[in-house]
Amino acid sequence: MTEVLPSWNNTATKAAIVDFVTRVTHVGGSDYVAPPERIATFDNDGTLWCEFPLQVQVFFTLDELKRLTVTAPALLAKPAFKALLAGDLKTLMTLSKREIFEPAFAVHAGMTVDEFKATVGHWLQQAKHPKLGRLFASNTYQPQVELLQYLRDNGFKTFIVTGGGIEFVREVSEQLYGIPPEQVVGSSTKAKFEIADGQSAIRKMPDLGSFDDRDEKPVNIDLHIGRRPIFAFGNSDGDLAMLRYTLTGPGARMGLLLHHDDAEHEFAYDRDFKPSPFKDGLDHADEYGIRIVSMKNDWNRVFPD
Amino acid sequence: MTEVLPSWNNTATKAAIVDFVTRVTHVGGSDYVAPPERIATFDNDGTLWCEFPLQVQVFFTLDELKRLTVTAPALLAKPAFKALLAGDLKTLMTLSKREIFEPAFAVHAGMTVDEFKATVGHWLQQAKHPKLGRLFASNTYQPQVELLQYLRDNGFKTFIVTGGGIEFVREVSEQLYGIPPEQVVGSSTKAKFEIADGQSAIRKMPDLGSFDDRDEKPVNIDLHIGRRPIFAFGNSDGDLAMLRYTLTGPGARMGLLLHHDDAEHEFAYDRDFKPSPFKDGLDHADEYGIRIVSMKNDWNRVFPD
Repeated sequence: MTEVLPSWNNTATKAAIVDFVTRVTHVGGSDYVAPPERIATFDNDGTLWCEFPLQVQVFFTLDELKRLTVTAPALLAKPAFKALLAGDLKTLMTLSKREIFEPAFAVHAGMTVDEFKATVGHWLQQAKHPKLGRLFASNTYQPQVELLQYLRDNGFKTFIVTGGGIEFVREVSEQLYGIPPEQVVGSSTKAKFEIADGQSAIRKMPDLGSFDDRDEKPVNIDLHIGRRPIFAFGNSDGDLAMLRYTLTGPGARMGLLLHHDDAEHEFAYDRDFKPSPFKDGLDHADEYGIRIVSMKNDWNRVFPD
Repeated sequence: MTEVLPSWNNTATKAAIVDFVTRVTHVGGSDYVAPPERIATFDNDGTLWCEFPLQVQVFFTLDELKRLTVTAPALLAKPAFKALLAGDLKTLMTLSKREIFEPAFAVHAGMTVDEFKATVGHWLQQAKHPKLGRLFASNTYQPQVELLQYLRDNGFKTFIVTGGGIEFVREVSEQLYGIPPEQVVGSSTKAKFEIADGQSAIRKMPDLGSFDDRDEKPVNIDLHIGRRPIFAFGNSDGDLAMLRYTLTGPGARMGLLLHHDDAEHEFAYDRDFKPSPFKDGLDHADEYGIRIVSMKNDWNRVFPD
């Protein structure tokens, strides 16, 4: 028999995951869940790929600002925009996720979604992480890729629910995680439909439609999926509402938060990481029935080769 | 060999549908489309089930107003709300879809999504169409149910993109059409996440989030699906943007509009039906490359037994 989840160590965490999946798929068992209700939601930044020292989309925006001309006064005045323009990572790291991402979402206003996706795709083919020296797109977590596949092999439908831009993540979700665009939920700007001369497009507008973080995650899960997940995986306080929404439904449920505690193979950070702090989750995991996953102890590898 | 689409007559329309599906699924053919890109979107009211003399959700709202207490002054002042409260169908039929639906979306503010869905489910089990004398939920179009299945049998992923309320349609989409809730896109009110005493819910708010009609349809298709459909089916001018978005992409594409011209088996209406007029679609079908489907000539039955 091939061992499942090979990049996971044989700890209590892996045993609990396998036990959960076994129980909900056991026909006739008291915890059985019919396949259509086997909804699993995963955060992206810091849960499926590296988000340190800043989220991938922030590095994309840093590069993009070298070629984009931004004139909107409201945007120019924002501290995050000034720091982005100056390439000032240290200042960016003192801001909240919402502050950092708001200009990142707005600077591509006026572009069509297809143009934006092509720009993202081209950038990801060559942009490298400043510390790891690998392509950003190769900084996915191998144990999570295996977990997504394991869940799908057991009849789960896997979704990404990210604070990152929905089009940004959709550009890579199928290739990196086997998750099709229609199963990606994320932050979004407002958009409009345009048609002329036999061609049509969806054009991005400057206003934020939804910032898919914290309480907005369960709201967007309801809007996009329409079912309460039975399994959710995140890595920060921004995912707590999604996990608590998942865990407070009836029947068997599982919620996990990834703890970045492996400075040797990735980075070690939690409470003090301003762009996505992990504090309430650590303090209240037991109370909420959340299992903390240790990168250091529960995984035997982090990135794919 | 079993005949495909048995409730469709052997007209040019059926031949064109079968030809399209054959071409896009023919591996190695010039029109081949890989399965993940085989996205088909269907309007609901008037395309998948009966919307005459008014949409099903309007009848639901009429009944609901007998038990709900509405106090919001802005809502009470709306002509559609007054007509709804008075059960005045004639006046409602002189208003636009947006006018009719806006109060329909707002009156359930304060209810959780789960409570709302349970209310819808209960109502649909016994509510009957005033003229047809059948359960509203049995007024689906048998030829369309067959078409949805035929597309899925050929590797298509089928979606509903409706001007109706997203939760309302999700309550019945799986049972009536084999379409799971996560493949339903629709109009929505804003909502919020609530958690207390180990229980959580999504609660509906009075403000409209999106009215999924006309240009909003392609915008919401992009937001929820993230791919341009290759097949779209509607029945009114509210679907034209969705069809034109579908038809103006590269490669093989198909767009259809259902013409309600069968007064004997259903109803005959088009240009003058204020709640969902079909005028521009009739006038410009050829120019836009849209095929008009005649209920009378292209179908040999309308409803299931």
